[in-house]
Amino acid sequence: MEVLAEHKVHGGTLKYIRHDSAATGTPMRFSAFVPPGKGPFPVVIWLSGLTCTEDNFTTKAGAYAAAARLGLIVVAPDTSPRGDGVANDEAYDLGQGAGFYLDATQGPWAPHFQMETYVTRDLIGLIEAELPSSGRYGISGHSMGGHGALTLGLRHPKRFESMTAFSPIASPARCPWGEKALRAYLGDDHALWEEHDATYLLANGTVEEFEFDDILIDQGAADPFLEGQLKPDLLAEAAQFIGQPLTLRMHDGYDHSYFFIASFIEDHLEWHAKRLKR
Amino acid sequence: MEVLAEHKVHGGTLKYIRHDSAATGTPMRFSAFVPPGKGPFPVVIWLSGLTCTEDNFTTKAGAYAAAARLGLIVVAPDTSPRGDGVANDEAYDLGQGAGFYLDATQGPWAPHFQMETYVTRDLIGLIEAELPSSGRYGISGHSMGGHGALTLGLRHPKRFESMTAFSPIASPARCPWGEKALRAYLGDDHALWEEHDATYLLANGTVEEFEFDDILIDQGAADPFLEGQLKPDLLAEAAQFIGQPLTLRMHDGYDHSYFFIASFIEDHLEWHAKRLKR
Repeated sequence: MEVLAEHKVHGGTLKYIRHDSAATGTPMRFSAFVPPGKGPFPVVIWLSGLTCTEDNFTTKAGAYAAAARLGLIVVAPDTSPRGDGVANDEAYDLGQGAGFYLDATQGPWAPHFQMETYVTRDLIGLIEAELPSSGRYGISGHSMGGHGALTLGLRHPKRFESMTAFSPIASPARCPWGEKALRAYLGDDHALWEEHDATYLLANGTVEEFEFDDILIDQGAADPFLEGQLKPDLLAEAAQFIGQPLTLRMHDGYDHSYFFIASFIEDHLEWHAKRLKR
Repeated sequence: MEVLAEHKVHGGTLKYIRHDSAATGTPMRFSAFVPPGKGPFPVVIWLSGLTCTEDNFTTKAGAYAAAARLGLIVVAPDTSPRGDGVANDEAYDLGQGAGFYLDATQGPWAPHFQMETYVTRDLIGLIEAELPSSGRYGISGHSMGGHGALTLGLRHPKRFESMTAFSPIASPARCPWGEKALRAYLGDDHALWEEHDATYLLANGTVEEFEFDDILIDQGAADPFLEGQLKPDLLAEAAQFIGQPLTLRMHDGYDHSYFFIASFIEDHLEWHAKRLKR
């Protein structure tokens, strides 16, 4: 692993790191905030949305004052493999910057777009080896990264003990962003899409299997993508269907930007700290 | 004035605004955060550093939670006039993005680089006309913008009632960034440079004239520009020379980035609120 940059912030240390991922077969970048004081600390993994890199959350979310106070490591990876040898698409919602946190099975994506294995195996493996982690993990994210947080959380409930999301793509199998990406990465079989769709995962699962006492979703009511792409009501209905507690907060006037995330990130970190430290 | 974008953040409203400035003869951009609740509110003007636009502080400083709580309007203008008809230089430290908050007298800069008049007349005029301002102003900034905050504060003490800076270029007449810019914008007469140098302004003035009960300067001790460009000790010595209270805080391990600003911006906004609301 290579430390590309290091900054002191809110008494803790923020590092930008590059490392080689066996899953993606590429170098991958992430940022990692380590709070001040004596560890070990629980870890919150933050997954960003379409077009983002590891830098968006890191510079714009204003998360580290709360992370320092709460004693949380916060790790924000890039949203896809990148580079000249990596497949891409001219659209902003497919290819580099749009990995959708799953392992692609279709050409030309399969050789490098293995983001689920990257996050759950390679990234966490490096965190465990290199950072003062307590070994307890929460996951959160925004938009495509909200989808990633929910699907990775539901698919790996033994790994992630707390799960929140901002403005998630709640049912990608039933919205334009998701349909396009799931078809490209997984092929035409809708049953395979449902395995990477938080709403289907919830509806097809059981509360006992997931082990989340509650799930926090924040959504801006003035978000232009709310009705066409995000559809948190579908997720809430699926949770209700299986009896999974889920807290969906709709916020008047808030949009899809990092200004919305910055306004409520402290609540999310408190949510994770409460569960990862008990 | 044209509102280019508007976001709800921390319960308040952030607007990106474009307006025509008579001083610069160009359109100018700034961001303005208006806190929730009933005004009028005091105003803190934030001046950014070399290469910045109105967006850097706005997205990276994490200032609006505190501004909302304290009831402060926070306005962050661009750092220079811009556009095809505006003079520029290939270097990052001269021309567009490097206006140094003074009125240039030399070609090719004089026609548009009139940032002192822009900030103190046109920008404040628009704020007074369009935002719920109490008419009371504080000023702050970073690096070149710290220089701007200190020099505009000292040159317009009736306008600005509170003044703070992060990592300011404390004596531009005696550092490479400043010498280059002051020569380009003002010509070779060192006496003219001293009128736009916070250390000289302090040393040549009186406490009674400035009317600041105290001045807050935060500086990272791991800032790579500290010794060669910033030199806050010179400012502290000048303050001591005339008996002007000045609080210079050196912070171990912090660098020149917005992560440093984010770590201490709440202290600065509290500093301004205390003085602008009494």
